[in-house]
Amino acid sequence: MPSYKAPVEDVLFLLNDVFGFARYSNLPGFSDATPDVVEAILSEGAKLCEEVLTPINLSGDAEGCTRHPDGSVTTPKGFKAAYDAYVGGGWNGLSMPAEYGGQGLPATINSAIQEFVSSANIAFGMYPGLTQGAMAALLAHGTEEQKQTYLPKMIEGVWTGTMNLTEPHCGTDLGLLKTRAVPNPDGSYGLTGTKIFISAGEHDLSENIVHLVLARIEGAPAGTKGISLFVVPKVLVNADGSLGERNGVSCGSIEHKMGIHANATCVMNYDGATGWLVGEANRGLNAMFVMMNEARLAVGIQGLGLSEVAYQNAVAYAKDRLQGRALTGAKAPDKPADPIIVHPDVRRTLLSIRAFNEAGRALVLWTALQADVAHRSADPAERQAAEDHMGLLTPVVKGVLTDRGFANAVEAQQMFGGHGYIEEWGMSQFVRDARIAQIYEGANGIQAMDLVGRKLPRDGGRAMMRFLAEVEGFCKENGADETLKVYAGPLAKALGDLQKATMWLMQNAMAKPDNAGAAATDYMHLMGLVALGYMWARIAKAAAARKAEGSGDAARLDAKLSTGRFYMERILPETGTRLARISAGADAVMAVPAELF
Amino acid sequence: MPSYKAPVEDVLFLLNDVFGFARYSNLPGFSDATPDVVEAILSEGAKLCEEVLTPINLSGDAEGCTRHPDGSVTTPKGFKAAYDAYVGGGWNGLSMPAEYGGQGLPATINSAIQEFVSSANIAFGMYPGLTQGAMAALLAHGTEEQKQTYLPKMIEGVWTGTMNLTEPHCGTDLGLLKTRAVPNPDGSYGLTGTKIFISAGEHDLSENIVHLVLARIEGAPAGTKGISLFVVPKVLVNADGSLGERNGVSCGSIEHKMGIHANATCVMNYDGATGWLVGEANRGLNAMFVMMNEARLAVGIQGLGLSEVAYQNAVAYAKDRLQGRALTGAKAPDKPADPIIVHPDVRRTLLSIRAFNEAGRALVLWTALQADVAHRSADPAERQAAEDHMGLLTPVVKGVLTDRGFANAVEAQQMFGGHGYIEEWGMSQFVRDARIAQIYEGANGIQAMDLVGRKLPRDGGRAMMRFLAEVEGFCKENGADETLKVYAGPLAKALGDLQKATMWLMQNAMAKPDNAGAAATDYMHLMGLVALGYMWARIAKAAAARKAEGSGDAARLDAKLSTGRFYMERILPETGTRLARISAGADAVMAVPAELF
Repeated sequence: MPSYKAPVEDVLFLLNDVFGFARYSNLPGFSDATPDVVEAILSEGAKLCEEVLTPINLSGDAEGCTRHPDGSVTTPKGFKAAYDAYVGGGWNGLSMPAEYGGQGLPATINSAIQEFVSSANIAFGMYPGLTQGAMAALLAHGTEEQKQTYLPKMIEGVWTGTMNLTEPHCGTDLGLLKTRAVPNPDGSYGLTGTKIFISAGEHDLSENIVHLVLARIEGAPAGTKGISLFVVPKVLVNADGSLGERNGVSCGSIEHKMGIHANATCVMNYDGATGWLVGEANRGLNAMFVMMNEARLAVGIQGLGLSEVAYQNAVAYAKDRLQGRALTGAKAPDKPADPIIVHPDVRRTLLSIRAFNEAGRALVLWTALQADVAHRSADPAERQAAEDHMGLLTPVVKGVLTDRGFANAVEAQQMFGGHGYIEEWGMSQFVRDARIAQIYEGANGIQAMDLVGRKLPRDGGRAMMRFLAEVEGFCKENGADETLKVYAGPLAKALGDLQKATMWLMQNAMAKPDNAGAAATDYMHLMGLVALGYMWARIAKAAAARKAEGSGDAARLDAKLSTGRFYMERILPETGTRLARISAGADAVMAVPAELF
Repeated sequence: MPSYKAPVEDVLFLLNDVFGFARYSNLPGFSDATPDVVEAILSEGAKLCEEVLTPINLSGDAEGCTRHPDGSVTTPKGFKAAYDAYVGGGWNGLSMPAEYGGQGLPATINSAIQEFVSSANIAFGMYPGLTQGAMAALLAHGTEEQKQTYLPKMIEGVWTGTMNLTEPHCGTDLGLLKTRAVPNPDGSYGLTGTKIFISAGEHDLSENIVHLVLARIEGAPAGTKGISLFVVPKVLVNADGSLGERNGVSCGSIEHKMGIHANATCVMNYDGATGWLVGEANRGLNAMFVMMNEARLAVGIQGLGLSEVAYQNAVAYAKDRLQGRALTGAKAPDKPADPIIVHPDVRRTLLSIRAFNEAGRALVLWTALQADVAHRSADPAERQAAEDHMGLLTPVVKGVLTDRGFANAVEAQQMFGGHGYIEEWGMSQFVRDARIAQIYEGANGIQAMDLVGRKLPRDGGRAMMRFLAEVEGFCKENGADETLKVYAGPLAKALGDLQKATMWLMQNAMAKPDNAGAAATDYMHLMGLVALGYMWARIAKAAAARKAEGSGDAARLDAKLSTGRFYMERILPETGTRLARISAGADAVMAVPAELF
């Protein structure tokens, strides 16, 4: 059975040494998050993930969820107890406002915990994960009464939440959605329609499930401008907060999926279910975007989490499995063969994953920190800069971390040879589970279009210009440093490729939008390569500083510096290929007529 | 349920227009393979794959194989009838010698059929596929009596074959294997040991199963030089060829795998089973290599086959699914949205797969044709050149076609959004099935080491020099041609990268073998990119010639030419990244101590 150890030490190094977490102590909630408190929280979360969630991951995959004839759904063995331990530990409310029962701590800390949970048991993590998304929407757009009704129970964990967007004929293109909302005399609405792919739509973990549902109010305009957001509890809530009658919403079936078997993916049938408008009528997509940004960051973190746990298990196997001899002579002459970690191709594989994981973790924490600043800073200029960053980096975190996370899970599985293909070893599950993260919350092609079509040109390219200037500034500042130039040099070259690609888009995509569409995925990955390269440069700088001051484990700091060099030499050069593809333009992409595909 | 249409027309175009199949009519068996006969065979094979094997693919995955308490194994519903249709059609003997009941036709034709079968139902195809490998070993190394005993029955299909190499503690490193063979007074041996991952090890399709088994004769030297090959039938064969007693070999369990569920992957227990030596004692690995080369080509073809069927289904979905509008304005204004094939990012994805498939098919047929020349030509120089080609290209076909084949299946699945993740749509199966091809018959890292460590330096680099010279010759000859320069130009540039990488290895890998190990996978892919690029250049030349002479469907020929341009502009530039990685050397790869992974 796979094992997992949460990278607490690495998170602390990133927060304290790389991003100077202490500098943010003026933000609300941050003053409580002293280094000691952060370390204690992370260690506690690590323990839960390692000891409670990891042991039920493989068995949860094998057992899956069961839907009963009455529409109820049972989660796999051990999930209810684990859920109780999870919410009992207060993890649902970690960064939720104190007024509704939360602890108000930085969302950055929550992001680190999300990574641990995703590594330990992604299918489990989706139950509280969806609840977080639903809470975010209620917090941002709900009335005070709605907040008081739902948030305390959701933070406590006795109620969970979901997001209901997709219908059979519409996923990306929500303008096509058909679920109808008919006004009731009391101000509520009756919702009727079918939603599909509803994660955590029905289960046995909580007393109630709070569905956030997109629907079209009778007579509303067609397309995306006629969509409203509703809150529809599975069990209606009485005026005193107690549970009342069952609402007209039920799980019609659950899907047989490639992975995340332990999470119930439901078809939800709304048959005149009672719901209440959240936010303004016909502005539902707007309200939903709040949930989506949070959710997209969380999905990127899932990609990272699966890459990390797959890496850890591949390393353990590579140290244990004896097969062949090192090219440079036996390394374990007392054994029948050397452990396969002696082989350069095995190390290359493992380092590729690790070089991604450590920089990916940095990118997540950096972006989460900007989310905290955007939500909590008193300074409008600081807030705007942080929002720019978040908007720009969210599709990159989602798209790149899940694409690479999946590819890394596959590479880690490959280390096991034939054993990797056998389900009982657990590597197949990591691959199958990681696959969903590329698809849901906006398939990665949509993330790329969001980046190129929306985030890049927004406000005259302000966010992108700031990002480019920041990386360029770092390269200039550190390019001559004896230790850092092996990072700053390649980074500057890769940044040049990103600048050229950006310029090419500015000159060629306005007049011919297909040039943007044909470039989008490569541009997203080019941006990801540079952002992760920048993270490595900053990590290297922090590691070099620690080494210079003689604090920390020198061998571990050297390993960081080597892994960063590996990234610069072996991964970052991909920017050249990405630039070549982008600047090839759309001609060959659009030339073949549809009927000849 | 997924559908499949075999690319008969494309195979004929490649054979006739690109490779001039008719030029080989002097080889034994080729004179029977006139264009009409080849077309008839391919069409008949296509029909079987489309109408018999495709319909039981998804259901076979869902049902899987069942092992019963007595050790017998049942294949999924419909498999026995499909197998009877398959062997009844004579497909087992297509390119087997006439003296044992085969048709003696070119193996090239067989390779095309293997692609169709892999697309239609890879799990099914493995039953006759393993039989082919076993027959190849018996043909090359068996005594005449062994051939007479086994081959006619295997060609007829009433007996099947397997390859038994792997043991729990040894996969790649066969020198560690422990299965013992004790000589019996009658010249046979008693085999005892456990083999794992034995595909088609037990099933209900045939009366007998002919196991080819690696074992160590008592007292043989340790390591790879003490391994012998044995033939061990499941049911012993009487002197008159009839079936006798059950032999001491049985299926202990079947594996629960990520994919190829309909093929039984068995733990095989040998308890003093009676076997007969095949070839010389202690030269078993040598004999096994004959099977492995055939099998590696066949596994590369599996990668191609899954990429093709995944592509076809993704195209069908992309033409059908309505979502969003084209960036350049509605293309289907009468419908609620445009089919997603209007979106550049969707087309980019589909063309990436297609550009690989068409060139991959060419590479397979080109290599298979060389195998035919190597086996059948009367001219020693021609045979040597063909053997060089086969040896050099086999690891590339296996490694690159399966890595890209899997990646393409994933990309095709991505086109379906959330539906791609649901098992009933069948795309998940293609991904899960394609995954094994990267692992078995030598994991792809092993293929890369075989290429760099063995095939490349062999005979002073003769095979590689010939390959480089051939591609260079093509580029020079066609670089000035108005139509062909857009192919020859980029190909020449990519070839330059391959030449530089080869030179770098020559200068840096002798003294420091880790430089070869760290470069191997990237070198294999670099070689694959150039080989596929060369295929595209030759396809383009043939298509341009057809267009110039006004024969063939001009629109289809234009689509070929466009797809080739797409390859040159969007896929081939990856050679630059591969070269950069290779020439980075092994330092950063080897720097981190094993205990700090």
